[in-house]
Amino acid sequence: MPSGRHFLQIPGPTNVPDRVLRAIDRPTIDHRGPEFQKLGQEVLAGIKEIFQTRQPVIIYPASGTGAWEAALVNTLSPGDRVLMSETGHFASLWQQMAGRLGLEVELIPGDWRHGADPQEIEARLAGDRSHAIKAVCVVHNETSTGVTSRIPEIRRAIDRTGHPALFLVDTISSLGSIDYRHDEWGVDVTVSGSQKGLMLPPGLSFNAVSEKALSASRTARLPRSFWNWEEMLAANATGFFPYTPATNLLYGLKEAIAMLLEEGLPAVFARHERHAEATRRAVRGWGLEILCADPREYSAALTTVMMPEGHDADALRKAILENFDMSLGAGLTRLKGRVFRIGHLGHFNDLMLCGTLSGVEMGLRLAGVPHQAGGVQAALDHLAGSAPADEPDQRQRRTA
Amino acid sequence: MPSGRHFLQIPGPTNVPDRVLRAIDRPTIDHRGPEFQKLGQEVLAGIKEIFQTRQPVIIYPASGTGAWEAALVNTLSPGDRVLMSETGHFASLWQQMAGRLGLEVELIPGDWRHGADPQEIEARLAGDRSHAIKAVCVVHNETSTGVTSRIPEIRRAIDRTGHPALFLVDTISSLGSIDYRHDEWGVDVTVSGSQKGLMLPPGLSFNAVSEKALSASRTARLPRSFWNWEEMLAANATGFFPYTPATNLLYGLKEAIAMLLEEGLPAVFARHERHAEATRRAVRGWGLEILCADPREYSAALTTVMMPEGHDADALRKAILENFDMSLGAGLTRLKGRVFRIGHLGHFNDLMLCGTLSGVEMGLRLAGVPHQAGGVQAALDHLAGSAPADEPDQRQRRTA
Amino acid sequence: MPSGRHFLQIPGPTNVPDRVLRAIDRPTIDHRGPEFQKLGQEVLAGIKEIFQTRQPVIIYPASGTGAWEAALVNTLSPGDRVLMSETGHFASLWQQMAGRLGLEVELIPGDWRHGADPQEIEARLAGDRSHAIKAVCVVHNETSTGVTSRIPEIRRAIDRTGHPALFLVDTISSLGSIDYRHDEWGVDVTVSGSQKGLMLPPGLSFNAVSEKALSASRTARLPRSFWNWEEMLAANATGFFPYTPATNLLYGLKEAIAMLLEEGLPAVFARHERHAEATRRAVRGWGLEILCADPREYSAALTTVMMPEGHDADALRKAILENFDMSLGAGLTRLKGRVFRIGHLGHFNDLMLCGTLSGVEMGLRLAGVPHQAGGVQAALDHLAGSAPADEPDQRQRRTA
Amino acid sequence: MPSGRHFLQIPGPTNVPDRVLRAIDRPTIDHRGPEFQKLGQEVLAGIKEIFQTRQPVIIYPASGTGAWEAALVNTLSPGDRVLMSETGHFASLWQQMAGRLGLEVELIPGDWRHGADPQEIEARLAGDRSHAIKAVCVVHNETSTGVTSRIPEIRRAIDRTGHPALFLVDTISSLGSIDYRHDEWGVDVTVSGSQKGLMLPPGLSFNAVSEKALSASRTARLPRSFWNWEEMLAANATGFFPYTPATNLLYGLKEAIAMLLEEGLPAVFARHERHAEATRRAVRGWGLEILCADPREYSAALTTVMMPEGHDADALRKAILENFDMSLGAGLTRLKGRVFRIGHLGHFNDLMLCGTLSGVEMGLRLAGVPHQAGGVQAALDHLAGSAPADEPDQRQRRTA
Repeated sequence: MPSGRHFLQIPGPTNVPDRVLRAIDRPTIDHRGPEFQKLGQEVLAGIKEIFQTRQPVIIYPASGTGAWEAALVNTLSPGDRVLMSETGHFASLWQQMAGRLGLEVELIPGDWRHGADPQEIEARLAGDRSHAIKAVCVVHNETSTGVTSRIPEIRRAIDRTGHPALFLVDTISSLGSIDYRHDEWGVDVTVSGSQKGLMLPPGLSFNAVSEKALSASRTARLPRSFWNWEEMLAANATGFFPYTPATNLLYGLKEAIAMLLEEGLPAVFARHERHAEATRRAVRGWGLEILCADPREYSAALTTVMMPEGHDADALRKAILENFDMSLGAGLTRLKGRVFRIGHLGHFNDLMLCGTLSGVEMGLRLAGVPHQAGGVQAALDHLAGSAPADEPDQRQRRTA
Repeated sequence: MPSGRHFLQIPGPTNVPDRVLRAIDRPTIDHRGPEFQKLGQEVLAGIKEIFQTRQPVIIYPASGTGAWEAALVNTLSPGDRVLMSETGHFASLWQQMAGRLGLEVELIPGDWRHGADPQEIEARLAGDRSHAIKAVCVVHNETSTGVTSRIPEIRRAIDRTGHPALFLVDTISSLGSIDYRHDEWGVDVTVSGSQKGLMLPPGLSFNAVSEKALSASRTARLPRSFWNWEEMLAANATGFFPYTPATNLLYGLKEAIAMLLEEGLPAVFARHERHAEATRRAVRGWGLEILCADPREYSAALTTVMMPEGHDADALRKAILENFDMSLGAGLTRLKGRVFRIGHLGHFNDLMLCGTLSGVEMGLRLAGVPHQAGGVQAALDHLAGSAPADEPDQRQRRTA
Repeated sequence: MPSGRHFLQIPGPTNVPDRVLRAIDRPTIDHRGPEFQKLGQEVLAGIKEIFQTRQPVIIYPASGTGAWEAALVNTLSPGDRVLMSETGHFASLWQQMAGRLGLEVELIPGDWRHGADPQEIEARLAGDRSHAIKAVCVVHNETSTGVTSRIPEIRRAIDRTGHPALFLVDTISSLGSIDYRHDEWGVDVTVSGSQKGLMLPPGLSFNAVSEKALSASRTARLPRSFWNWEEMLAANATGFFPYTPATNLLYGLKEAIAMLLEEGLPAVFARHERHAEATRRAVRGWGLEILCADPREYSAALTTVMMPEGHDADALRKAILENFDMSLGAGLTRLKGRVFRIGHLGHFNDLMLCGTLSGVEMGLRLAGVPHQAGGVQAALDHLAGSAPADEPDQRQRRTA
Repeated sequence: MPSGRHFLQIPGPTNVPDRVLRAIDRPTIDHRGPEFQKLGQEVLAGIKEIFQTRQPVIIYPASGTGAWEAALVNTLSPGDRVLMSETGHFASLWQQMAGRLGLEVELIPGDWRHGADPQEIEARLAGDRSHAIKAVCVVHNETSTGVTSRIPEIRRAIDRTGHPALFLVDTISSLGSIDYRHDEWGVDVTVSGSQKGLMLPPGLSFNAVSEKALSASRTARLPRSFWNWEEMLAANATGFFPYTPATNLLYGLKEAIAMLLEEGLPAVFARHERHAEATRRAVRGWGLEILCADPREYSAALTTVMMPEGHDADALRKAILENFDMSLGAGLTRLKGRVFRIGHLGHFNDLMLCGTLSGVEMGLRLAGVPHQAGGVQAALDHLAGSAPADEPDQRQRRTA
């Protein structure tokens, strides 16, 4: 193995803090005993704060893809129509899943450089006089493109039509990194996972559910058992789970929630925003193009960079991995080789970002990719000019 | 927290070895990079040895209940009939799941003191001239009762009828503890989980699949996406997974497989048998009754003990937890309060068993449960009389 | 490696709790920065509670033998006479060290079955009209014999003579296990180490020092530098150390102190007493003899058992290690082969003790050592009859 | 605590690799049993490779300052004269220690910007006709200044005089980072510690000893007991230690040795050289001055940077710690406030260095220290131009 610490700068899984890893590295306990019950109650309460909800959040001992499935099978029936927006690779996978589960998908096509379009969603719902559309599904932060859809605007668009469709949102790569408000934004099912902004290893996933979603689940007829909310909620009422939970990951979840709340969600979001801006300045400094075409939709969690014509992003990523021991995100399916993705989310700070951007700049040079030097310098300028500890509170915290 | 180490003697999750915990406590890596690929290939190859199979084993980032669902949805279609045996609580849960998923269950009733009956299964299949039964589902080791069904005999029973039904077996609490041979015994789908004999925390589960099962999956029509074998097998071919795997648990799986193979599966099985026999001698020494009614079906993984009439097993378990910091398994549903379960599986040894049985004996006394002293003594006699290191190979290993 | 958890039942190093191990497993920090300062202040304050003192406790990044040396070189001058009692192997080693450092040792001989004799010490001091004796050195708990000297009685004996000698006490295997009061008992230097009752790995050691000892250090002329109290105390005043401290062990020390204080020192001492009594009942049950000849001096930390004539303790220990994966303490120097030592100190509980005693009883049988069965049963009887959770407070704590 | 990973860029303790931390986080074992013996033999053999010696290396359960004392007390007698060179703070501390232990120090004064002067040493020895000088003591890498003395040249200088003095060298901050050859360079006692290039937490220290040093130890009369080589070597012959070793740190030592040998010592040294050169280019890019005045003596382990007149290095370090969560080394005693030290040794890589230098550059700006931007850019240019994986062997290793 190479010397020093690997830079895991894919847009998730993210760098797991030692505090979380050490929590996970504890003996498993009886999942039906009083010690577990206390843990269960703590994480079930704490996770609500992260979703900014007072409604139930279900925790699955499964990775994020499972929570997509859970959201669909609990609320819909065979043949139900769902409205989806083609924002990128992950939106496409969710769409594919919906099809496999027997749903009929109405797809709003996209160019993978924009988020879901509130106006188009409004138009489709307005046109759906018969209310055939049972759910609108949107990926909040498209991990494949670095584009963040504007959920509150979409909510308002739906509301304007008075359409009764459920609103299902995937926050797998935004929760704990980008401001997200399950209750305030009127989302019915929020899907998420553990391995991004929550700073955990993969293996847990979530459904935050509204009263309306619960009501829908009572009549939904897609077959379901493992993902069934009803038994989950019944057992969760006393801090337990209907089948064996992923106890050690729950130890980690408790720590991760504590870390996010200690830093404070607004500070967490501001940190991600600041790092994203520094990254974009670096990209522009190199003379490269950001995939996200609408500045209102820039992702605070990752930045996707377009390669100059004729240059292969995967060759670049390989050179960076081999020379600088850093993993970057690949372009997926239709973006394969054409973009690379810089993750700057999770347990992260200024100097880790500087190391990351330095690796990209040196990699561009080694791989012979046309660019201008100076991207790192532009990022340094932004970071130094916006250093958080100039605020007295931060200073105190860091030196206490 | 009380002083000293907790005794986790429920029949799973089991005591996770430090070697596995330390493996899990490592930074998560890029699940699409070369380092992960090597890990993926290692665990996908290694886990086959544990199932005693040369056929594929699918690893889900989900707990064991999910692998039950996977076995059903990949091989069956809505309305298919499955033959199940009511061996205990977990067989009942699997049956319930089958019903929820839209299957029609033909249930062979049981008294929760016996395993699945090969003769009855043979009779049912023989009577099913139309081959309406698409699958026979059996729980190898009933975790709720401590009864181990005789899978090879059931296989022979099925074969005698020439019936084409698939054979699905749950080994969640037997794999890595009790001899189990996926290939030799002609099982089509073997379901398992990480948190028992595999000595891992919960969060991984498995489907070992036969050629016949794969063939069935091509026409099976139950909706599936997360559990879909096809994409799993396609990605596994190069060591990868179609969606984010539970990387840190895979680190642990690699260690757990190594530990089982270092000890040697025959030695692992013999160790469990020996501890089970010592436990049964202790139970008889106390003058209490073992739930399992047929000595051919004694479980090597756990022993379920019946309470004297009028005494509550949960009060006993509570006294033991409070006084001796040991968790024992509860009686489930129809056995609630009537039995307690002693887990003696996983990462375990003679002195841990002696501590465990001592805790039970002292607990019986503290809780005022009528019994004779001397159970621990009977176990000591058996253990001392069958100490493994009298074999030269063992001795060398331990002092090397 | 054998399956299950090793039983480390030597009288130290003891079983390190996971909570301490996980604390040690954290990144090392700058030993001159504000985060370290906070840690330094916490452990320097906390360790005083364990020594039951308000006077300074010096923490060395060195194992316990070093703290012996520190006690001598800081308080004495070349040729000074020290009065020592031959209570066992470790008292002899300390005496040897004193000789090597240029001190003149006056040795009160002993039979290794008794503690230091208050009357004899009184007589020697009374006879020392010229006050040639500069220090009285006593090992509180002789780890090689399981005999605990009566420090308060020795203090009173010294006081009766009005002799000005310093009183130096080694508590390496008693601190955190057996009641010890540096201030109340008027000890001038208390020596201790991390790897016994403090439940840490070896690598830290301690000098608790009285005002009188500090005063002596100002004129003491034995050469010293690494062990020098003066610079330690100067740096400690602000939470720092004059040279690089063993940071990661200090992380562990913080946890260990917290654990002892959470349980409460009186409860910790009572727990050790109870386990020692159960162990002695087991020894008597086997028909074997306890080395400690005076019941007032029974050690609560370990029990040393004499072998029947003609039987080798090391052969027994080897059989137990090979068959039951348990380490017991050997007889040292003049006791070699004639005794074995059972450690029952540190992070320990009833069922760990039951496992320990079971291993001894089975080992006696396997090694062909004449004994009666029933020792374990005697211990069970004592433990069940004195179970701590019968007290409501305990119960609440364990199930909270 | 701030988000992300702390940058510990003091010149030791260094960033401890997870592999070492996880090794340390294992249960302590019996230090007199067969499992320990194997460990002892492995580390005692392996550490020789790091010192590039076939002679014994003694491992103390104590921090590095103790190994200084050990080198002196084992080889010298009260009043012996030792020749020392004032290369910086640590050389001064060693000198102070020598004085306290009763030695007579002949000090070659220095300006703290140069290493020990071979010519001056030669002159002093040549002038010492009576061979009153018993030992020449040199600090290989002065951690307080970033100046590396030229040990082979000093050896040749000593040899030219034919003087019989012992040659004692401190490699606390060079071993495992800068080429050092105990045997080839004819050093009699090499002193070292665990917390720098060995990548361990503090708590272990070393004396590598020549035949000549061992011979001297037989007549040396400084009092010694804890540090005594004789008993150490006697016990080490079978893999054991005369008193309780720091077992858990030895677990880590085994891993650290393995890591250094896997990378290969020449590669380790080249890596440090390359990072030091990049750092110096950054310093020059900022227009600042390097403390080390002789390019032949540039340290590969750390770089000490002089502050512009009128600017306080500690204010800069504070700004960097508060804003960017990075610890840098302070100027010590006569350099206090006038320099800061950048550690680039141990478990380290290109992107960690880029993050480190970015933190310095941004800190200079925030603290208002006059400088030019562009230091980081200069480092990137050097690192990209000398990337290791351009060599095929490296590439293969990283992607295997």
